[in-house]
Amino acid sequence: MDKKKISQELENFQETSVLNEYVNYSITIILLRPENSGNVGSIARIMKNFDFSNLVIINPIEKEKNIFSYETQGYAMHGKDILLNAKILNPLPQTSHVEFVEKSLKSFDLVIGTTAKGKKYNNINRISIFPRELDLPISHKKKYNVAILFGKESRGLTNKELDYCDILLRIPTGNEYPTLNLSHACGIILYELFKKIHTIKHGRGQSPVLLADKKERILLYKIIKKLIKKLKIRNYKKGNVLKAFKNVLERAFITKKELSLILGLFSKTYNLIKDLDLFDES
Amino acid sequence: MDKKKISQELENFQETSVLNEYVNYSITIILLRPENSGNVGSIARIMKNFDFSNLVIINPIEKEKNIFSYETQGYAMHGKDILLNAKILNPLPQTSHVEFVEKSLKSFDLVIGTTAKGKKYNNINRISIFPRELDLPISHKKKYNVAILFGKESRGLTNKELDYCDILLRIPTGNEYPTLNLSHACGIILYELFKKIHTIKHGRGQSPVLLADKKERILLYKIIKKLIKKLKIRNYKKGNVLKAFKNVLERAFITKKELSLILGLFSKTYNLIKDLDLFDES
Repeated sequence: MDKKKISQELENFQETSVLNEYVNYSITIILLRPENSGNVGSIARIMKNFDFSNLVIINPIEKEKNIFSYETQGYAMHGKDILLNAKILNPLPQTSHVEFVEKSLKSFDLVIGTTAKGKKYNNINRISIFPRELDLPISHKKKYNVAILFGKESRGLTNKELDYCDILLRIPTGNEYPTLNLSHACGIILYELFKKIHTIKHGRGQSPVLLADKKERILLYKIIKKLIKKLKIRNYKKGNVLKAFKNVLERAFITKKELSLILGLFSKTYNLIKDLDLFDES
Repeated sequence: MDKKKISQELENFQETSVLNEYVNYSITIILLRPENSGNVGSIARIMKNFDFSNLVIINPIEKEKNIFSYETQGYAMHGKDILLNAKILNPLPQTSHVEFVEKSLKSFDLVIGTTAKGKKYNNINRISIFPRELDLPISHKKKYNVAILFGKESRGLTNKELDYCDILLRIPTGNEYPTLNLSHACGIILYELFKKIHTIKHGRGQSPVLLADKKERILLYKIIKKLIKKLKIRNYKKGNVLKAFKNVLERAFITKKELSLILGLFSKTYNLIKDLDLFDES
């Protein structure tokens, strides 16, 4: 392949894409009563990293002007568009927060809550599963609306807010300090969801295929074998030297790029010594 | 079990512990030239969340007084002790940054680097693996020293710094924006490492066992069966009603706590109606 073609291929390569089973998923990140605009900005950024785009903020404690401030945009970085397109929903004065949450969640087919509590609690409201235990259903609806709910920084989702969650997720942590920062908890949940709903193609090296083919690896082993044959190595050891190379390279799952560089070294070395009259000990 | 015993059991219960294979691992998080104290504080917090405690900062761009400031301690929250015990290493004036990095990393058996680049790059230095592809070796050394390296916020690890990494990790992301915030990248890597080196016991509900036993589930199904038998349900449907309950409860992996509550409901209902003289349609 010529250089131009390679660079074009690399340019057009899309490493990740949504799995067919989940193309009808519409996932919305919902923050309930967030207190800190920095966290909102950080969440917009990590959403962009993991290809999520719908952000809804319900009844924020933080001031609206702070949520959209230049400083918060700085936290969002390239996720600035997500931040600026975030919907802020505020209840009318006569509506309670909980009633408003219920109303705002009506259009969702699945509401996933998050909690840091539940490790030592004998509380039926806090019985949760780990992100890796979550198997998302394949839905035949045209649009399957999923909400991921995060409570406010200082106390998480309240028991009343939890009433509107269908499933509760908890991130496994050490025993001592289970409460993650809001945006970090969000990042880890989105990372796990990203892995669940996306397929990842390997795309490094000269073509969108990461690993060296069996054929290429065999080619390399042939050269190494020829080199070993030429060198002053005891016969009974020759097989083991080759095996050591095979072991290491196979265990490392060598890429095309790495293989071609290593193959080059062995080919050049072999060509240099192949016609030399070396002492053969055997 | 009486209430006091239960609460004591919950109090003493340790949900997670290091796997035997990895008790000799000593893992150090190393930040090279960090620019922003907020990130350092956030990293101390997420380290505490995932039971890591050694933080080393090499040649920081951020001022030392800012790294240990009250504001940074605020980011660290309960990880404040990790922040305040962090080692800051600065090179002597005649030593270059790269020489100093090399020297500082000498005592480590394994140096794991991190990168956001490498997705479209034809660069041998950036050939990386995903965290989930990393299988940590079981070492027989008394102490197996592992370093996890993070580069500075604005550009990550440089090619020269990468020279000292044995293995390179990259977090899978969407195609558009692969660069995570430093502390979020650190959080996700530590989360994955935490999962790899720890065993997680289920500990919710009344005893350190999450799921209801087969025996308990069978007890519940027996009561439901008796209830169905008593009700005005067509004979050919009775089996299916029971099967529907079994399907749903088994698929949900019901906990002891949930089972005991549901069992209570069915038992009470059955006791109320068992002696009633109901019309039997069959």
